[in-house]
Amino acid sequence: MVRPGDEFRVECREWTDAQIGNNDSANDVRDVDLKACHMLSGPIGVEGAEPGDLLVVDILDLGPVPQQVGDAPGEAWGYTGVFAKANGGGFLTDYFPDAYKAIWDFHGQVATSRHLPGVRFTGITHPGLFGTAPSKELLQRWNRREQALIDTDPDRIPPLGLTPEPDQALAGQATGSDAERVAQEGARTVPARENGGNHDIKNFTRGSRVFYPVHVADAKLSGGDLHFSQGDGEITFCGAIEMGGYIDFHVDLIKGGMEKYGVTTNPVFMPGNVEPRYSDFISFIGISVDHDTDTNYYLDATVAYRRACLNAVEYLKRFGYTGQQAYLLLGAAPIEGRISGIVDIPNACCSLYLPTGIFDFDVRPTAEGPKATDRGQCAVTT
Amino acid sequence: MVRPGDEFRVECREWTDAQIGNNDSANDVRDVDLKACHMLSGPIGVEGAEPGDLLVVDILDLGPVPQQVGDAPGEAWGYTGVFAKANGGGFLTDYFPDAYKAIWDFHGQVATSRHLPGVRFTGITHPGLFGTAPSKELLQRWNRREQALIDTDPDRIPPLGLTPEPDQALAGQATGSDAERVAQEGARTVPARENGGNHDIKNFTRGSRVFYPVHVADAKLSGGDLHFSQGDGEITFCGAIEMGGYIDFHVDLIKGGMEKYGVTTNPVFMPGNVEPRYSDFISFIGISVDHDTDTNYYLDATVAYRRACLNAVEYLKRFGYTGQQAYLLLGAAPIEGRISGIVDIPNACCSLYLPTGIFDFDVRPTAEGPKATDRGQCAVTT
Amino acid sequence: MVRPGDEFRVECREWTDAQIGNNDSANDVRDVDLKACHMLSGPIGVEGAEPGDLLVVDILDLGPVPQQVGDAPGEAWGYTGVFAKANGGGFLTDYFPDAYKAIWDFHGQVATSRHLPGVRFTGITHPGLFGTAPSKELLQRWNRREQALIDTDPDRIPPLGLTPEPDQALAGQATGSDAERVAQEGARTVPARENGGNHDIKNFTRGSRVFYPVHVADAKLSGGDLHFSQGDGEITFCGAIEMGGYIDFHVDLIKGGMEKYGVTTNPVFMPGNVEPRYSDFISFIGISVDHDTDTNYYLDATVAYRRACLNAVEYLKRFGYTGQQAYLLLGAAPIEGRISGIVDIPNACCSLYLPTGIFDFDVRPTAEGPKATDRGQCAVTT
Amino acid sequence: MVRPGDEFRVECREWTDAQIGNNDSANDVRDVDLKACHMLSGPIGVEGAEPGDLLVVDILDLGPVPQQVGDAPGEAWGYTGVFAKANGGGFLTDYFPDAYKAIWDFHGQVATSRHLPGVRFTGITHPGLFGTAPSKELLQRWNRREQALIDTDPDRIPPLGLTPEPDQALAGQATGSDAERVAQEGARTVPARENGGNHDIKNFTRGSRVFYPVHVADAKLSGGDLHFSQGDGEITFCGAIEMGGYIDFHVDLIKGGMEKYGVTTNPVFMPGNVEPRYSDFISFIGISVDHDTDTNYYLDATVAYRRACLNAVEYLKRFGYTGQQAYLLLGAAPIEGRISGIVDIPNACCSLYLPTGIFDFDVRPTAEGPKATDRGQCAVTT
Repeated sequence: MVRPGDEFRVECREWTDAQIGNNDSANDVRDVDLKACHMLSGPIGVEGAEPGDLLVVDILDLGPVPQQVGDAPGEAWGYTGVFAKANGGGFLTDYFPDAYKAIWDFHGQVATSRHLPGVRFTGITHPGLFGTAPSKELLQRWNRREQALIDTDPDRIPPLGLTPEPDQALAGQATGSDAERVAQEGARTVPARENGGNHDIKNFTRGSRVFYPVHVADAKLSGGDLHFSQGDGEITFCGAIEMGGYIDFHVDLIKGGMEKYGVTTNPVFMPGNVEPRYSDFISFIGISVDHDTDTNYYLDATVAYRRACLNAVEYLKRFGYTGQQAYLLLGAAPIEGRISGIVDIPNACCSLYLPTGIFDFDVRPTAEGPKATDRGQCAVTT
Repeated sequence: MVRPGDEFRVECREWTDAQIGNNDSANDVRDVDLKACHMLSGPIGVEGAEPGDLLVVDILDLGPVPQQVGDAPGEAWGYTGVFAKANGGGFLTDYFPDAYKAIWDFHGQVATSRHLPGVRFTGITHPGLFGTAPSKELLQRWNRREQALIDTDPDRIPPLGLTPEPDQALAGQATGSDAERVAQEGARTVPARENGGNHDIKNFTRGSRVFYPVHVADAKLSGGDLHFSQGDGEITFCGAIEMGGYIDFHVDLIKGGMEKYGVTTNPVFMPGNVEPRYSDFISFIGISVDHDTDTNYYLDATVAYRRACLNAVEYLKRFGYTGQQAYLLLGAAPIEGRISGIVDIPNACCSLYLPTGIFDFDVRPTAEGPKATDRGQCAVTT
Repeated sequence: MVRPGDEFRVECREWTDAQIGNNDSANDVRDVDLKACHMLSGPIGVEGAEPGDLLVVDILDLGPVPQQVGDAPGEAWGYTGVFAKANGGGFLTDYFPDAYKAIWDFHGQVATSRHLPGVRFTGITHPGLFGTAPSKELLQRWNRREQALIDTDPDRIPPLGLTPEPDQALAGQATGSDAERVAQEGARTVPARENGGNHDIKNFTRGSRVFYPVHVADAKLSGGDLHFSQGDGEITFCGAIEMGGYIDFHVDLIKGGMEKYGVTTNPVFMPGNVEPRYSDFISFIGISVDHDTDTNYYLDATVAYRRACLNAVEYLKRFGYTGQQAYLLLGAAPIEGRISGIVDIPNACCSLYLPTGIFDFDVRPTAEGPKATDRGQCAVTT
Repeated sequence: MVRPGDEFRVECREWTDAQIGNNDSANDVRDVDLKACHMLSGPIGVEGAEPGDLLVVDILDLGPVPQQVGDAPGEAWGYTGVFAKANGGGFLTDYFPDAYKAIWDFHGQVATSRHLPGVRFTGITHPGLFGTAPSKELLQRWNRREQALIDTDPDRIPPLGLTPEPDQALAGQATGSDAERVAQEGARTVPARENGGNHDIKNFTRGSRVFYPVHVADAKLSGGDLHFSQGDGEITFCGAIEMGGYIDFHVDLIKGGMEKYGVTTNPVFMPGNVEPRYSDFISFIGISVDHDTDTNYYLDATVAYRRACLNAVEYLKRFGYTGQQAYLLLGAAPIEGRISGIVDIPNACCSLYLPTGIFDFDVRPTAEGPKATDRGQCAVTT
């Protein structure tokens, strides 16, 4: 329990509880057990919080585990993974169906990777996941609507959604039938929902202020899934640079804030003012057409952003990266994904902004063409 | 015809050819005839350009018609329109099915509107639409795939796409059966496609460099649809601040650039460095759930961004704007639309960044709640 | 006469009235007649302005003469000059005593120079000089205090200051003894003073708002000396990219604003938000020591900034520029000059931030050392 | 001893060795004993460094002492002091001759002060002082030239400079006559010099890379004086937010770099890309005129910046701050001090950019005038 006005620190385990190692094989990514994920910290009750309030959360600071060298993610290193299609997949899973991994070394605010030579950037540290507790009614709504979606194609791989998973469920201090009910009804933490949740918004960084809807007494804030960096979309699924670490909060309340500000569903937030400053970008465009099959989709921003990502991958391959390396890079580096045009029927248009300053070579198009050099490869399965 | 290395000016009519007036009625938006749109300038041949090249286009300058006061859009004023559902609609057409309009006055780089009191921002001028000519084969592919989409729901209002429109088609210097063929086969310019086209990317502003794929000899650059400003998504369809004006280009070629850089479909670009600098934002989140019906969509960024827009509209209403005003504002102001999370099944997560500095009041959430005042209304139909 | 709330355009001659030509000789800079300078536009009366008010001036827009190609500065080109020591000198005149010149070509917002190959940057257009009219008492104070300074070393070359210059004085509509008095008493426009004046602040760019003290009825705004770009300090004296052009203003009043806001001497201003965005800099430091003679000065920021400039010149010479080219570049490009430490006795510390993105080569220090190439030379005297 | 390529942490005492307390009296600032200052860490030898090299130092991270709550500066709090004129003074010591203090509380990257209500800003953490060791010859030069300056007015209060101070000198492992010589000859660390030293450049923040001249074998890097934040100029002398803490470095060498890059005196540096982003400023101008006595100085940037500071102080007083509070604020907050015009005889022109976003009220000029409220006071002497 904390009080409005309090400042406090929360320590967070890396989201898979350190199943992934600092090595050159992607076998651990391929074989990861996702049943217990995400590992969360909390819940933290806020005195006086009632349904209808807005919980004001300032992210004062956030960083990896403060040790200098260590074994667990967050102790001076982190990782980015591409999940295999059979185990969750990612945004480009039809193009990259296997498991891959890149290990990142932290140098203060900067990350480099032996699996991605030529790249060096400042991380925008942020929590992938924080949120308040849902009310019983809200939880039932989630389970109902997600089950309805899953039912439209229940055998799909990867699945359309995940139902409550009793195996490895954490029920806190509950026991007996209570604990059983928690395990049976507790929603998985994969998606973002009305309570916040797994937003994976890279701009929830230091200095940000988030206004979470409160659905139960005491608000009950919990979360984790700290990221050293992430590109918009977190496209490889485990696409951020994952780590364990700490996060410092200040909390406050706006009583009746949901009604006052018309917040009926998702949180509102104000990003901080310390994101790294990049001024030059090479940008890629995608439209809602599958060019491989010449199929047109109607204002589908998901298809459009996927094409922008694929266009970026092709481009980076010309400089010597493998497609897998490029995919990992776009998941982890501070790229921006924009919805540029969403009304010009039938084609949505999305764009992806890749900062040129993260490369130690000139990545811009020139008349001479790109200078491709051997850039090694990422960690693969063996 | 121009040569690589040339700098030249192109003058552009406002995209509807001045069908919309500087007045307080949205009747002209409701009744607009879209058959002849977009009004384009060009085509401009570039000597030596061949299929497979990249046409390098620098946007040196861009602005409204340089007169101080005038009648046509671009002469010191522009407009933003919401199309009626029966006449094209917009991104939120199910929520705002009628026609609305806001008139904007230009003060150097700044826009204000009598229909949106309390707002003042610097425009990011840009062309909505520029592109190279398609090859015959590419044009056929467009017509085929868009027809296939339309055929899935041919009576939909608004339609899923638009087929060639012989009525009011411009065939340039072609006559007779040639002109007739052009009218029958020429694709509508509404969407962005492999040649560039109607991207509506607000960041194609002064100082930008765009690399267009070349599909025919001489590249044949054409375009128009100049915008004084636009928010990401251009959500009201005619959502930018529309104007006539001029655009200054420098052109060059990267011979064989498509293969050199792996550009198979869409253009690549580098944004300029003179976008207005805003540092404080209030940001809205949407997920791929229709909360009205509690329906879950699978990683649908279009639904997610729509929800973020609706959340922003609700928020702005608390400060005294009508929903229509808020909708018009989000289409025209320099808001950023981001794809934040696109892999956390089943919910895509998009976010919308509204710069707080464009308001002359404090738009951030406070414990006291918003101060709603009468802010008039936008132009409506009569 | 204009009224508070008005928007209007002012056209300005280049400050020397086009004495400098678009050619490759610096003879015109060496021989320039400075008696009639600056060429100003105005005065513009503002209805209702009274002593003690603040005149609120918004710079809506500003640019070169809108023709595409022409003869006078501002018609698609401008120049930067180093004055000879015998004719005014500049900040480094003891190191560069002769006259030099660089011609700049304008490409929209971008400038390049055949005299400075390898450089390309976005200009921050601004007026060097605008201000209100002084009261009779204030004018007398200026003349008195500047004469006192000149009297401390009346034969110095360049002089410590300039007294009223009857030769070529412009007296507007005054005739006879009135005109003669104006010529005898009118202060030269070289320095900035309590009324504004020749600030040469590069950040008075589009979107800026300046609050000028009002010293006489109607405020009587006048000015000129438009710059396409300038580095902090304008170190070559004629160091900006000089041009003729236009400036669009909006004016307003804060009645009694001087007392309300404690403005007793100089204007206050708010810079605009459209300055070009650079994020990478190579920065040079200077301290208040003359290293050539090992002489220490007490917290002298002028000496410290001069040393920072000299350090930057030496550095740029390693990349193939002549010292004169480097000097001209630092006067014209968007460099920032900072007072970093001003209390650490006895050494003031100043720093100069040079954006790396203005060069088409990598200007940062590397282990390999700089790649010097022949970069030609600037215009010199013949 | 470290090697090129190494990363390591240095811990630093607060510069006065914790003589200043977290309380509401400025007596400790008045009575501070400056003989032992600055407290430094080091020297750190870098293997292979030789005179003529450039020592490349990356500032990877920097922060206060990582405890949450504590007694010494850096343990969640820091201070800004104005020294009394009799004990060092500050930039405005003729206007504020007594001792004052403000205590700042740290909230992650943000600072607030009970002595400066209404203010909240993100710190740009940086070391005030780091540098390499001087050669014997260089040290003698310093002592000679600074003594020469002092000799011009040996009894001045505050003094023009400081000579070696045997009392409380630290001689490391030296003993006997060696230690005595160190105490007699060792230069005080107050000013910046050819080796780096007390630059007090606020932009030496995380992500910066500094290239220090190497004057002796192993370079011998040492430093300290960590700041949580500072305004350009550090005008109150002890004007930064002073703290103890840690700094993480990466070091490397450019062999022969001084000659390669023309670095003969001061370091060169590249600022990082994580400075807080402010976009709105209210800016003050000063010229090299003492308006109180109507005395004109010749292109004196020190006088001009002092006037800009005084103008800012007057302005802030209109909002309810005392002059002392305003002075302390300008020393500690991320203000920018610019040399704007340095050639317009006889008046240098400097400007001071105060970010408006650090205030929780609107600090911009309006027609209504400022709303002055009681804002308490800073810590004063008792």
